[in-house]
Amino acid sequence: MSANKFDAFAISDANYDPLTPLSFLRRTALMFPDRRAVVYGERQYSWQAFYDRCKKLASALSRAGIQKGDTVAILAANTPEMVEAHFGIPMSGAVLNTVNTRLDDETIAYILGHGEAKVFIVDYELAPQTKRALELHGDKDLLVIDILDLKNTSHPSAIGSQDYESFLSTGSEDDEWAMPTNEWDAIGLSYTSGTSGRPKGVVYHHRGSYLMSMGTITDWDLPRHPNYLYTVPMFHCNGWGHAWTMAAIAGTIFCTRAIDPEEIFSTILEHEISHFGGAPIVLSMLLNSPAAKDFVCNHKIELMTAGAPPPAAVLQGVEKLGFNVTQVYGLTETYGHTVMSTWNSDWDNLDAEARAKLKARQGAAMVMTAGMRIVDMESGIDVPADGETIGEILIRGNTIMKGYLKDQDNTAKSLKDGWFHTGDLAVMHAQGYAEIKDRLKDIIISGGENISSVEIEGVLHKHPAVSLAAVVALPDEKWGEVPCAFLELLEGKSVSEIEIDTFCRSHLAGFKRPKKVIFGELPKTATGKIQKYELRALARSGKLN
Amino acid sequence: MSANKFDAFAISDANYDPLTPLSFLRRTALMFPDRRAVVYGERQYSWQAFYDRCKKLASALSRAGIQKGDTVAILAANTPEMVEAHFGIPMSGAVLNTVNTRLDDETIAYILGHGEAKVFIVDYELAPQTKRALELHGDKDLLVIDILDLKNTSHPSAIGSQDYESFLSTGSEDDEWAMPTNEWDAIGLSYTSGTSGRPKGVVYHHRGSYLMSMGTITDWDLPRHPNYLYTVPMFHCNGWGHAWTMAAIAGTIFCTRAIDPEEIFSTILEHEISHFGGAPIVLSMLLNSPAAKDFVCNHKIELMTAGAPPPAAVLQGVEKLGFNVTQVYGLTETYGHTVMSTWNSDWDNLDAEARAKLKARQGAAMVMTAGMRIVDMESGIDVPADGETIGEILIRGNTIMKGYLKDQDNTAKSLKDGWFHTGDLAVMHAQGYAEIKDRLKDIIISGGENISSVEIEGVLHKHPAVSLAAVVALPDEKWGEVPCAFLELLEGKSVSEIEIDTFCRSHLAGFKRPKKVIFGELPKTATGKIQKYELRALARSGKLN
Repeated sequence: MSANKFDAFAISDANYDPLTPLSFLRRTALMFPDRRAVVYGERQYSWQAFYDRCKKLASALSRAGIQKGDTVAILAANTPEMVEAHFGIPMSGAVLNTVNTRLDDETIAYILGHGEAKVFIVDYELAPQTKRALELHGDKDLLVIDILDLKNTSHPSAIGSQDYESFLSTGSEDDEWAMPTNEWDAIGLSYTSGTSGRPKGVVYHHRGSYLMSMGTITDWDLPRHPNYLYTVPMFHCNGWGHAWTMAAIAGTIFCTRAIDPEEIFSTILEHEISHFGGAPIVLSMLLNSPAAKDFVCNHKIELMTAGAPPPAAVLQGVEKLGFNVTQVYGLTETYGHTVMSTWNSDWDNLDAEARAKLKARQGAAMVMTAGMRIVDMESGIDVPADGETIGEILIRGNTIMKGYLKDQDNTAKSLKDGWFHTGDLAVMHAQGYAEIKDRLKDIIISGGENISSVEIEGVLHKHPAVSLAAVVALPDEKWGEVPCAFLELLEGKSVSEIEIDTFCRSHLAGFKRPKKVIFGELPKTATGKIQKYELRALARSGKLN
Repeated sequence: MSANKFDAFAISDANYDPLTPLSFLRRTALMFPDRRAVVYGERQYSWQAFYDRCKKLASALSRAGIQKGDTVAILAANTPEMVEAHFGIPMSGAVLNTVNTRLDDETIAYILGHGEAKVFIVDYELAPQTKRALELHGDKDLLVIDILDLKNTSHPSAIGSQDYESFLSTGSEDDEWAMPTNEWDAIGLSYTSGTSGRPKGVVYHHRGSYLMSMGTITDWDLPRHPNYLYTVPMFHCNGWGHAWTMAAIAGTIFCTRAIDPEEIFSTILEHEISHFGGAPIVLSMLLNSPAAKDFVCNHKIELMTAGAPPPAAVLQGVEKLGFNVTQVYGLTETYGHTVMSTWNSDWDNLDAEARAKLKARQGAAMVMTAGMRIVDMESGIDVPADGETIGEILIRGNTIMKGYLKDQDNTAKSLKDGWFHTGDLAVMHAQGYAEIKDRLKDIIISGGENISSVEIEGVLHKHPAVSLAAVVALPDEKWGEVPCAFLELLEGKSVSEIEIDTFCRSHLAGFKRPKKVIFGELPKTATGKIQKYELRALARSGKLN
């Protein structure tokens, strides 16, 4: 298309400003300097104090030689330092690399090497296990900084050359810091836990994180000044971007070092927590906690859940506690949630079961998501919106990663044909709502029939003795594959394999029944996802047959 | 800065999507097809039906030969056709030129010529007066389309070659339409009413309108599904962008052809209107309407007001009616509101007068606004945040116009040094809140002292007999200039010049008192702003001395 009269304008600093979530902090510190930004037990920072600390962190990093595009890694729980890292590190021009706290030494060493970290900030609780990762990594120039428990100054476990507070004091809040000059500049680097092979480094940009926040405010109906409890690990998709989002609406972030149901319940009541998020495993923990019985809350609590599709029984259980659950779907590659199970008031008058089914769907593309499709894996054509035909979920939009760091092959594979290929399987319902059926890897093909392991898990979760269920494919001479169930039972409960089979017969088509049931604790990732690849490997090893 | 490892990614359709408010419509029609989009008396369209009509409009325009970058003008009240124009015209790739309905023939002809309109859609009520504009314009190729009253098919006043519904039926909702390929592409063209000389054509882009909506949702705390009453003329900054914003949150837009207090009050009650906007003149009309006395509303109503700074008495009056007023500030060049008087709960416990003073300020930069400064007109240095020192307001961000169409000189003048120069005068308070004192042109310099005409007007508005007040500079041999007040009185009230002077003496410094008071109806622009340039011209003419 040739240029027209409307194209005759140059972009200028007056009318073009690179989108970045850092702008939220600057504005909120100016407008609401005295409101609480971060609360962590006795420690509380106003937005002005928090901004000053972030500026000092940026300044200290710059003075230590950190330049634009350098990587600064952090291995920490959801403490104020971790929240500060989300602003101070990109404010220095560096890229924030949050590291999963439950990784093994070798993987941490791999990440530090692959991401080319120049600085590594480590929480004192994680220091002992990190020591060996640093030895493996072997980079003597890496600046290691300890986050200490501020109440206890002597830390035999310290592994860094200085502690976080001392490092902050080398910086000044009067130093200038710069907004990104290009909104496509990297802001974050998150390694996927990866079900096989080396973890991949997912790169986020400022534009995506800005729009992620604006879209979350819009679709989660976030008011100004929410009280947000940070139970989602911030190393996981930058904690779904919620630290940046809270800066946009001057919320208060309540930090928590660990997921403890009793602490969550008491924090909700004490601080009138209005919003929090958690993987389905967190929902189960809350539901199964003895503290749940005494929990009575008089204010509204919005709970965002993502990760594995939560069983309907779990969803209903937490709703009974008074939490309004909004399910979302996304991956590390999509900055976290990108699809939301937005409730439609037209459904208000349906019966409880119909409502639960609708609520259990992962949802429709969020406002900042350009599109979601579910396509047939072979033809690449959209499946009909019949709620039955399974296809792969494709997503496109501004909250899709730049790509995998130093990995052109996997970047090209996942971002091909203008869409991000999630590797997740789903069906499409009416009005653009998708329902996840499985990971591509998790589908079980038995006698030529596709069986969704998620469907079987949903049934197993309804059994009163079952706490957690995982179903994978077990090689079978006759059928090719058959379902194999791994069950973790509720404390004090017991059930036999035959009872499970009888239960499944009354809820599932015959060919979908697990042909084998194994009892015991399930292996889980850092974020509470069941490590099905381990179970798949076990099933494939022949040890179960 | 040299490239780093994080720059090694190409932008693709998977991870980059041009920002445009058109995406809101596509998504909401998919997710909420049956919810009401537009209500206009008996006429109601669901989001699906509305989307279909917008697609037909885009298709009809394309089939009529309209191409990307062509201008399509519309002169209409806030009817469904006007809302459709906000989507259907840019969906065709054309630029939407909303024309002020109260302009004279010559100015309309000028706009059609300057904007190079290819299509002109005209409401039947405005046809008679538009006929001469078309004769003056003289472009025989201009496709003129009549918006008719759907209840009445015979319209002697029709001036077009076809009516809107017939034109729609030449298009098909099955035709493809395209999102913009560049978010910097023009979406709208709005001519400023201009206090002198020819109106200037302000050009908006898709990115700005998208961010305007997201910022409004965030800062005005807009929930999903508001009931929005469209009292702000849509020819004015595209009605503050609210049609696009409502599409993002699946609200319902209630159209209204005219500003009628009785109709507004009854619509609010009948349709549970949750949000609306209006210039201060609308607030005054509501307040002074006999219907106000009987108005009792049981639900919360959010009212956004912009334009001239509303007198504190008016603000307090409408709050008593049950409206929560949020004041905003902006210009046509800033897509409408860009600064908002966001309430800070720290102020809740102040006394009523202190709260009213805080509420009367125009506010702080909104979340999508990159920055606001108030600078000394001579030195260009920021004035201190002392609430006293007057300077010019500068604004920058993504919701600043591309520039003035075919007017490089004025574009360069207004967008110089990386900031948009508003020409408005204000003082800066703490926490980034600005308070408008005057237009540059409206400052009165008397005996070397700067006098704010707005301050005097604020005092005059407190007088129980005064409905509207405007103060301008009157040339004076001794003092250079002295304040001259023009007053419109409330029906049935009377007051003498001496009484006004006595009233002013008790509220103003002596040198700020109007030295002359004129009673009578005040000239107003289409948007209800008092046309001070006419009063200034009158004062300068010597006829008053």
